[in-house]
Amino acid sequence: MKDTGTDIPTYDDMLAAHERIKPYIHRTPVLTSSYFNELTGAELFFKCENFQKAGAFKVRGATNAVFGLSDEMAAKGVATHSSGNHALSLSYAAGRRGIPCHVVMPRTAPQAKKDAVQGYGGQITECEPSTSSREEVFARVHAETGADFVHPYNDPRVIAGQGTCSRELMEQVDGLDAVIAPIGGGGMVSGTCLTLSTLAPGVKIYAAEPEQADDAYRSFKAGHIIADDAPVTVADGLKVPLKENTWHFVSNFVTDIFTASEDEIVEAMKLTWKRMKIVMEASCAVPLATILKNPETFRGKRVGVIITGGNVDLDTLPWIK
Amino acid sequence: MKDTGTDIPTYDDMLAAHERIKPYIHRTPVLTSSYFNELTGAELFFKCENFQKAGAFKVRGATNAVFGLSDEMAAKGVATHSSGNHALSLSYAAGRRGIPCHVVMPRTAPQAKKDAVQGYGGQITECEPSTSSREEVFARVHAETGADFVHPYNDPRVIAGQGTCSRELMEQVDGLDAVIAPIGGGGMVSGTCLTLSTLAPGVKIYAAEPEQADDAYRSFKAGHIIADDAPVTVADGLKVPLKENTWHFVSNFVTDIFTASEDEIVEAMKLTWKRMKIVMEASCAVPLATILKNPETFRGKRVGVIITGGNVDLDTLPWIK
Repeated sequence: MKDTGTDIPTYDDMLAAHERIKPYIHRTPVLTSSYFNELTGAELFFKCENFQKAGAFKVRGATNAVFGLSDEMAAKGVATHSSGNHALSLSYAAGRRGIPCHVVMPRTAPQAKKDAVQGYGGQITECEPSTSSREEVFARVHAETGADFVHPYNDPRVIAGQGTCSRELMEQVDGLDAVIAPIGGGGMVSGTCLTLSTLAPGVKIYAAEPEQADDAYRSFKAGHIIADDAPVTVADGLKVPLKENTWHFVSNFVTDIFTASEDEIVEAMKLTWKRMKIVMEASCAVPLATILKNPETFRGKRVGVIITGGNVDLDTLPWIK
Repeated sequence: MKDTGTDIPTYDDMLAAHERIKPYIHRTPVLTSSYFNELTGAELFFKCENFQKAGAFKVRGATNAVFGLSDEMAAKGVATHSSGNHALSLSYAAGRRGIPCHVVMPRTAPQAKKDAVQGYGGQITECEPSTSSREEVFARVHAETGADFVHPYNDPRVIAGQGTCSRELMEQVDGLDAVIAPIGGGGMVSGTCLTLSTLAPGVKIYAAEPEQADDAYRSFKAGHIIADDAPVTVADGLKVPLKENTWHFVSNFVTDIFTASEDEIVEAMKLTWKRMKIVMEASCAVPLATILKNPETFRGKRVGVIITGGNVDLDTLPWIK
């Protein structure tokens, strides 16, 4: 098993990741909306990872980890704990390589995500919806299988993979002033920092977080990691805390972190479905919600907005009670 | 007012329409789905008019009609009756030209569509949800305003405009064997026939219709127009009957018409949202539902599928009771 302690991936790791994963991922489209440009006074460029393979950006990092394994290591398979999309993504990537994938998942995760993990061939062990329970159950599964642990976000292979998203974005859109992405564990934001700090150091990086799971915001203001055990938010992909490797990037390269309330997130989510005709998760609406809430920061700017995933349980939409 | 009796638009009318409307419409993307290709055994190319301006293909025909008017005729504005998307589209086009738009609309139309018509500046007069009531109320509004009548689908300017969609599709995808589109009044199907019968006469054209509003299917089999007065279907854009000009194209150029049940339509709709991450109307799911039902016709073929619109009332999704 690879030691994922405090390994910080490099720009070259990101470039190598991009070559490695290209056969297995989509170069996702960038959409614009005249409606949202008028509403915000900014020029927004939505990088649509909801159209990505397995329905989320997380396939980038997972695929990089899976296809970087030696044949000997790969034979034992991979394992992870995840609130959803990393589980799908690792299952997808393992399936493409033809190796086993063991997933520890909260029993409260959306049924659509559980079905999809199993659809890709992933094997699920359920835990309670708290960080402590997840880590305890995972330790047991990991010991039993000997599979390679691919952490959902703290793994340098995963961060390098996520960094390929903003590399594509910079190729697709000229003259961006800023990029904003949702932050949970910080994998996407760290990948964005990894890539932009070398490729486009003038581009500001913002993170957006639910008020009800604002550990990254509080960590950022305090200057050290603060973790919550079991936050409750509609943005179910954003409940997990920062770890050492993602904290490195967040603390060094992020300009600011903004938060939004549950109502603001749901409203931005529904408005995006309505006007842009795309299915995306509540997590992806947090950046737009914070842009609407902090217009002075974004007005007149060209802003990349990462739409992180589209794996929604269509039977339980948050605006339909 | 232009006589829209039995004027059949030509291929050159379609080319002229494309030049006229290009500044006001999107060249919409074509999406593919490895999931649906595996499921159907066909290669499907989804032409996504749900991402079109005003949220539907109907903006093509409406914009062609509005911008083809002389200044003198335009001054009195335009008027129409519509179950929804043509109303939005004509309001959008009239707004871009800065002229009035009068809309007669069933009181049962989705609230989202009424709001959007008014959002674009259209003025709504409500009627009962039947063809007879719609025509009666419209005659009054038309007489009072003197506005130019732009029929939702029987108008040759509208058919020529809708034909620009399959022109784009043929530029975007090589070697199509067939194109399939939903059929209500037949505007999109007629435009498709208009374009392909000259540009690619070897490409088969199929139409897809709800079983519960299968007047086009029955007309096609009978060899003459059969109209229903008030059919009930979740595919609310497909309730209207064929008229002379669309019957001309359907009867001469369509290879076959397939139907699907309400359950099949809703299932295909939800599955498309889930797997392709796009918001589209129930009407757009009818083609996919019929492809799934008639696999022998489509297996091994390269098939263009027109996703006609994305103006959904997100508060009342048909799979959530």
